[in-house]
Amino acid sequence: MTIAHPPTPGTALWVHAHPSPSSLNGHLLRAGVRALSADREVTVSDLYAQGFDPVLDPGTLIDGAPGSEAGPAGLADLLGDAHAHDRLPADVVREQEALARAELLVLQFPLWWYGPPAILKGWFDRVLTAGFAFGDVDDRGVPRRYGDGGLSGRRALVVVTAGEDAASIGPRGVSGDLESLLFPLTHGVLWYVGIEPLDLHVVHDADALGADGLAREVERLMHRLRTLDDEPGRPYRRLRDGDYRGTRALREDLLPGRTDLGIHRLPAG
Amino acid sequence: MTIAHPPTPGTALWVHAHPSPSSLNGHLLRAGVRALSADREVTVSDLYAQGFDPVLDPGTLIDGAPGSEAGPAGLADLLGDAHAHDRLPADVVREQEALARAELLVLQFPLWWYGPPAILKGWFDRVLTAGFAFGDVDDRGVPRRYGDGGLSGRRALVVVTAGEDAASIGPRGVSGDLESLLFPLTHGVLWYVGIEPLDLHVVHDADALGADGLAREVERLMHRLRTLDDEPGRPYRRLRDGDYRGTRALREDLLPGRTDLGIHRLPAG
Repeated sequence: MTIAHPPTPGTALWVHAHPSPSSLNGHLLRAGVRALSADREVTVSDLYAQGFDPVLDPGTLIDGAPGSEAGPAGLADLLGDAHAHDRLPADVVREQEALARAELLVLQFPLWWYGPPAILKGWFDRVLTAGFAFGDVDDRGVPRRYGDGGLSGRRALVVVTAGEDAASIGPRGVSGDLESLLFPLTHGVLWYVGIEPLDLHVVHDADALGADGLAREVERLMHRLRTLDDEPGRPYRRLRDGDYRGTRALREDLLPGRTDLGIHRLPAG
Repeated sequence: MTIAHPPTPGTALWVHAHPSPSSLNGHLLRAGVRALSADREVTVSDLYAQGFDPVLDPGTLIDGAPGSEAGPAGLADLLGDAHAHDRLPADVVREQEALARAELLVLQFPLWWYGPPAILKGWFDRVLTAGFAFGDVDDRGVPRRYGDGGLSGRRALVVVTAGEDAASIGPRGVSGDLESLLFPLTHGVLWYVGIEPLDLHVVHDADALGADGLAREVERLMHRLRTLDDEPGRPYRRLRDGDYRGTRALREDLLPGRTDLGIHRLPAG
């Protein structure tokens, strides 16, 4: 079986993970959706407003499902087994349908403890199931992941607001650089299932913007969204290209000696 | 106000984030608690069993709280404002009391999408509030974070099971190295509030261990726990030591040119 969900041209899914409509994030959401809607059909998953349940519980899926292999030994990959199961909860199916259709994915959230809020982490845990987002191999037997997979053919924009300034989460910043802090999301989630992340859209000093700062950030996001189609991609290395062949680590002749997460970016040109 | 929660010697809090008691993680939990209990008083927060709610919703805290500054402008740090509020939910208070008492913190979870399950991410989002875990300055005016803070004087062991092999999540591994993938947790969460993380305890190939592998991993964890007191610390750089002074980035004379997250480790010796 080949997993494939060809996107519908001109569509977007905006996943929003902030509790307050009156917040900076609320303003960015409304302005962003307005800007995108000029030439795209936009679906919004407002996780807080929907009361989205982020807790993956394979137990609830397996109940009453004779023949499930998960459980007895306790050693099976419960996550994968549950995901392979075809009785997914209705809310997961809804999110999968929206994602399967969308050509552009926007993930918008405030940086909490240097990562996405739990409600968004749980959206990954529950929605990106095996058999939907990943799980097969290509015609050479290479697993379809990292640059390939069920959701390939899509791009994603990560919009993140951070209380810290650019230096604190920049290169060598005291909190770690944001590119690395969000690598589990941009590479481990998006790229894993075939979605190409664009450059991060970061709002720094998000708690101290004031009215002028808010207006400026709203305008900056709207401009970014209006010109998104002109942006070059910024992919990571594709597993199928062989850069990790044999050892599952980056080949020794590529960027020898470096151990930063930036080694997984495809060199430009 | 100085935030301080001196731990009670000989106590431990074990936070567990896996849904199935019959899983590898369930086995590791029971064996680990047994081993630790030989010479410590151990409290367990079994987040799935407790039905822990991981969704931080400042709105529920602010309701009916006259004088709250969050809300109107919509630009306030809702997270901080909610946390500063003294009407915390009962489940958060219970977790804070257990954490305030514990000298050793164990965080145990399966690696889902290259990070903790949402239920554990939400434990950080909700339990580590301003005014409890962080938020004050030392007597020189330096913020008490990164090696100092409300929870200093503690050590933490992160026990993580991963479906991938050691090469895939090792240095230059195709999925990124686990030290970097978990930096938002070990540095961004633990170290931020003053807790010193010990070396990660990683179970690789967790979905393919078999009965012998399970027995081996149970024994390895129990041995680790029995000898924990002999382990040297492995701290990151302390903010108060001045390595980031002025620019909020690591001083140029320290490890010049390097941009990997490992630069934030305190050099040995």
